[in-house]
Amino acid sequence: MPLVVTMGDPAGIGPELLLAIWRDRAQLSMPPFYVLADSAVMEARASDLGFDIPIAVCTPEEASERFDEGRLPVVALKNYADTRCGADIPASPEVIVEAIATAVEHVKAGRASGVVTAPITKKSLYAAGFQHPGHTEFLGALAQQYWPVEPAEPVMMLAGPDLRTVPVTVHIPVDAISAAWTQERITTVARIVAKDLRNRFGIVEPRLVLAGLNPHAGEGGTIGTEDEDVSHPAVEELRAEGINIAGPLPGDTLFHARARKTYDAALCAYHDQALIPVKTLAFDETVNVTLGLPFVRTSPDHGTAFDIASRGIACPDSLVAAIRLAATLCEGDVR
Amino acid sequence: MPLVVTMGDPAGIGPELLLAIWRDRAQLSMPPFYVLADSAVMEARASDLGFDIPIAVCTPEEASERFDEGRLPVVALKNYADTRCGADIPASPEVIVEAIATAVEHVKAGRASGVVTAPITKKSLYAAGFQHPGHTEFLGALAQQYWPVEPAEPVMMLAGPDLRTVPVTVHIPVDAISAAWTQERITTVARIVAKDLRNRFGIVEPRLVLAGLNPHAGEGGTIGTEDEDVSHPAVEELRAEGINIAGPLPGDTLFHARARKTYDAALCAYHDQALIPVKTLAFDETVNVTLGLPFVRTSPDHGTAFDIASRGIACPDSLVAAIRLAATLCEGDVR
Repeated sequence: MPLVVTMGDPAGIGPELLLAIWRDRAQLSMPPFYVLADSAVMEARASDLGFDIPIAVCTPEEASERFDEGRLPVVALKNYADTRCGADIPASPEVIVEAIATAVEHVKAGRASGVVTAPITKKSLYAAGFQHPGHTEFLGALAQQYWPVEPAEPVMMLAGPDLRTVPVTVHIPVDAISAAWTQERITTVARIVAKDLRNRFGIVEPRLVLAGLNPHAGEGGTIGTEDEDVSHPAVEELRAEGINIAGPLPGDTLFHARARKTYDAALCAYHDQALIPVKTLAFDETVNVTLGLPFVRTSPDHGTAFDIASRGIACPDSLVAAIRLAATLCEGDVR
Repeated sequence: MPLVVTMGDPAGIGPELLLAIWRDRAQLSMPPFYVLADSAVMEARASDLGFDIPIAVCTPEEASERFDEGRLPVVALKNYADTRCGADIPASPEVIVEAIATAVEHVKAGRASGVVTAPITKKSLYAAGFQHPGHTEFLGALAQQYWPVEPAEPVMMLAGPDLRTVPVTVHIPVDAISAAWTQERITTVARIVAKDLRNRFGIVEPRLVLAGLNPHAGEGGTIGTEDEDVSHPAVEELRAEGINIAGPLPGDTLFHARARKTYDAALCAYHDQALIPVKTLAFDETVNVTLGLPFVRTSPDHGTAFDIASRGIACPDSLVAAIRLAATLCEGDVR
């Protein structure tokens, strides 16, 4: 079954990256996928960049055949987008939102194996009348809608070639981290990570590690008390449940080559603690994986990059890695 | 002129690392140095590890000659230490403190070119009756004592083979970072870093970058207001003074290979934001450099490691890098 890939914001780099990946699919050994897009946007971007790419507007069921025939399968949407690109172009929120919702609907209906999303901006969601703080939360709401009885608690994982990290708190100010660093939040996230490493990544006995919130993991309570009062009890609670988790350990000693061999995923206290190591090591190949959903979803770890859209210089590596990882996770999905 | 190296805590790994580095000095192309130590500790550790190392107790002036003759120059101290090692051994605070103070005195007197310090624990300073929060602050106080008219504001820099970072706030809880993130603190640190990159590192026009405090550098004020209210004005103030500084930029996009080529040092908001990237890339070779002092001081970026002391398994790479960098900085010192 093919993967479904949303085109993301039509004015950003998503469409051109998909065209470039399609063009190089043999060399990149890409798994079959189709794009949920306004085909006029794909045609316009191919024309801008001088790509000679035959596009086949088709159904999800026809997609694998079109893919094999050498035509980029595009499943059309009801809404249309402005076909120009750049930051000054009026947003096309309806088509962006439709693509995401349709992707989930296709997976639910067994028409696609998993979802890969190209980048959007939060503004598009707001403009479409949604209150979701971001792409991932919107997918969580869609999961709840389509799988009403399954738990859907989206958890962001960053996956690089040899490091996986999970920020336990994400897009909040540094000043708000301590209050959000609760035993309940840590254990909820850890359970989802352990479950998905087992069920999706095929790691039979996943090894987790928890980074301390404070420098030196609080150094015995002398640099903040949260690691004594919150991190330690969370680790104990998880161990008592049979989850293999070490820590809390000092964040700065966790990510060098020897340390990385000792765990399958590192739970970090906050955004930069999680994203800095993985993006320092493999900026272009880092993939955003959403755990805790009843379906596979990955996305590249970059934004819409309006400033370079249509210039043919955007790096496709992260989206390539996202599509590949989605295919691997769908194969391994034993839920 | 030789470098002076303190033995650090006699019960930790400092003495054995110095012995190992001395033994391999030719192969490691080590610059001349002498050790400030209780020679009985050095003899005991050499004996424990089966090292056949001739020790010459001498003056700083005789050290380079002894070094060239093939004897490890040790300048003796007034205080003695327990020669055993491990965490359970009673601390020897007097000799630890004497070594540090004597090293600074030797540099002030023109008997040594710069100071390298092996690790101690803060407890030793407290046990000796000091209130300094750490090694570096103690060196700052000594600088003030010996160079009363020169400014001494110790600033910690982490230097790896291809990345230098400076935490603007250091050993404080995450919950205290926002209050400590002031325009005055950022500009004070940036001026010291720019000056020392010029005067010690020989970088004629140093390029600095400032990492944002909050995720995505606050994303225009939607994830915390400090980057708008504090980081931006700090960067503007510094630029108006002629300091080349970019930012605030999102912390997670600053440390990959391409990004690292765009600056000579990254100023980071807090401990883990600064230490994670440099230690992820080069854990064993990261050196702690103290800027803002009237003399060169480096130290390895690891602790006393009591648990592995005297077992011959401690990695000397960071102390090797610290000694080498101190020699380079002393050569380049144009103050």
